[in-house]
Amino acid sequence: MPRAHHPFTSRRTASVAYLGENRLIAKIRQWLGPASPPAPHGIGDDCAVVRRARGDTLVTVDPLVFGRHFDASVPGRAAGAKLLKRNASDIAAMGGRPSAAVVALALDAKTNVAWLADFYRGLAAAARSLDIAVVGGDVAQADGVFVATLTLLGETTARVLTRQGARRGDSIYVTGVLGNSLASRHHLNFTPRLAEGQWLAGRDEVRSMMDVSDGLAKDLAALTPPAAEAALQRDLLPLRRGATLAGALSDGEDYELVFTVARGADLAAFAAAWRRKFPRTRLTRIGEFVARRPRLARTEGIVNLAVHRGYEHFR
Amino acid sequence: MPRAHHPFTSRRTASVAYLGENRLIAKIRQWLGPASPPAPHGIGDDCAVVRRARGDTLVTVDPLVFGRHFDASVPGRAAGAKLLKRNASDIAAMGGRPSAAVVALALDAKTNVAWLADFYRGLAAAARSLDIAVVGGDVAQADGVFVATLTLLGETTARVLTRQGARRGDSIYVTGVLGNSLASRHHLNFTPRLAEGQWLAGRDEVRSMMDVSDGLAKDLAALTPPAAEAALQRDLLPLRRGATLAGALSDGEDYELVFTVARGADLAAFAAAWRRKFPRTRLTRIGEFVARRPRLARTEGIVNLAVHRGYEHFR
Repeated sequence: MPRAHHPFTSRRTASVAYLGENRLIAKIRQWLGPASPPAPHGIGDDCAVVRRARGDTLVTVDPLVFGRHFDASVPGRAAGAKLLKRNASDIAAMGGRPSAAVVALALDAKTNVAWLADFYRGLAAAARSLDIAVVGGDVAQADGVFVATLTLLGETTARVLTRQGARRGDSIYVTGVLGNSLASRHHLNFTPRLAEGQWLAGRDEVRSMMDVSDGLAKDLAALTPPAAEAALQRDLLPLRRGATLAGALSDGEDYELVFTVARGADLAAFAAAWRRKFPRTRLTRIGEFVARRPRLARTEGIVNLAVHRGYEHFR
Repeated sequence: MPRAHHPFTSRRTASVAYLGENRLIAKIRQWLGPASPPAPHGIGDDCAVVRRARGDTLVTVDPLVFGRHFDASVPGRAAGAKLLKRNASDIAAMGGRPSAAVVALALDAKTNVAWLADFYRGLAAAARSLDIAVVGGDVAQADGVFVATLTLLGETTARVLTRQGARRGDSIYVTGVLGNSLASRHHLNFTPRLAEGQWLAGRDEVRSMMDVSDGLAKDLAALTPPAAEAALQRDLLPLRRGATLAGALSDGEDYELVFTVARGADLAAFAAAWRRKFPRTRLTRIGEFVARRPRLARTEGIVNLAVHRGYEHFR
C-alpha cells in the first residue's frame, strides 16, 4: 500500500499534540475558510444556529475511519471530500437539499497537521461546491485512530422519497454505472446525485428510492415490498469499466440512486423527461418487482441476488 | 482503576464481531426502544426526517472516547447517558430546546454486546427523560477504540443567547456549584440546565450565556468583552463539597450555566424571579466585568484567573 498520505507522523513538531487544542481549532477555522460562516451560524459557540428552512429537516451521519474507509494511498483532500460526499449521497437518496454539516474528530496525538490541513481543505472545497456550510465540530484525542464523523443536515423538497412504497409490478431503475468503485477510484471521485434526487422527488410516478452504498444486491432488499422479489435482467445491469457482474452487485460504494417507478406509468415519457433534464447521467431500467416464486433465480437471464451479498461490517 | 465495566471482551461469542452488523443494528433499535421513532422519523432509511419546528435549528456535536471521557469504573448506562446529557447542556447554553439525536459509533470488533446494550439503554433513558428522539446513527469498526459521537438537534426558544453580548459593568452569574466533578461523580449524575436556559433566554436583562464544561477560568474568557476582565469575588464562588477554589475554576465538567446580566438591571427582582421559578437551583452572582487594569488580579478578594487555566486537550 502506498504510504504517501499517512495521517500520522513520528515528528512531534509536525503533530497536533505539538500544536495543542486551542491553536488546532483556530487552524481548522482557517482551513475551512468561507465554507464556515461566523458564529452563531458557524463555529465558535455552544451550538450552531441553522436558519429555519421551508421543508422538514433531514439528518444523516457517517463516520470515516482510517484503515477502513480510506488508507494511506488516499490524499487527505480526497478523504475529507469523500466524507462530505458520502453523507450528501444520503440526502440525495431522500430527494433532499443539503444545508449544514458538523464534523467531530477523534484522533491520535501523532496526527500530522499538514495532512489534517489537506483533509479540511478537501472537505471545505466539496462543501462549497455542494452549497453546504460547515457550522460546527469537535476534536477529541483517541489513541491510534483517525475517526472523522460528519453529521449532515438538509431539508426536504417536493416530497420525501423513502425506501418504502414500491409494489409488485413496479420498475427498478438505477443511475450511472455500478461496480469496481475502489480500483477505479470512483469511491473518491463521485458526485452525489443531488440534482437527480430532487428532480425524482417531484415525479409522482417514483415511489421509493435509496442510494447504492453497500452493493445493489444488499441495498435492493430494503426497497423490496413484502411477498415480492426483484427480477433483475442480467444483460441490463450497467457495469463500470473493469467491473464484473458480481462486482456490480456487491462491491458497494457506488453512490448511485436506485428507485422504483409505479406499474402503469408511462415509462417512455419518464425516460424522455430524464434525458432532457439529465442528458449526461445514464439511467437504466434494470428490472422489476415480481411475486416471490421458488424458481425465479434460475430463470434464464435473471440475476440470482441471493448469491451476491453486499458488504457486511464486522465480518 | 476498577475494571468492572470494560467495554471490550476477550470472549468472541460475547463480541459485536460475533453478532455481525445486521443483527447489531437490529439490537440497537431494540435497546433504544420507544426512544427511537419508526422510519422515516427514526432509524431505518438513508436519512431521518425531523419535523419542522417553530424556531431556528440548533446543532451541536460531542464525542465520548473510552479512556478519555470515561473509563472502566463507569457503567455503560452512565456512559450512554453522559454522552446525551453533555450535548443537551450545549443546547441549554443557547436557551434552546433539544429535539433529535443521531449517534455514530466507531468501535473495536471486541466490544462487549452486553456492555453496549447498557450503553444504549442508558442513552435511551436519558433521551426519554429529556424528550429527545434518537433518530439515526451509524456503526463502523475501528481498532482498539470505543468512540461514540452524538449530534444533537434542537430549536431556539424566545431568543438565542450566545457567548457574545456582555459589556463592562455587567454582572456574572453561575448556576449550581462548581468543582470536584470527577470524584463526586457529578460528571455522570448531572441534569442539563435546559429549563433554566430556556427561562433565561426569555429574560431581557440576560445578555450572554454558555455552559461551564472546561472549567470556569477557561470558559469565562469566551464571555469577556473586549478591553474588560472578569472580577470574581473569591468568597462568592459556590464550591461543591470537596472542591477547592482551584478545582472550582479549572476542574471542568460542571455542566452549569454561566451568564451575564446587564448593568443597571434590577438584580434583586431578577434573583427573586429566579427563586420563584427555580427554588431548588442555586444561583450565585460571582462578580462582574470591569475595565481591564494591571493590578486587578492582586486586589484583595479577587480571583487571579490567569493562574487557573482550564483543561486543554492534547496537552
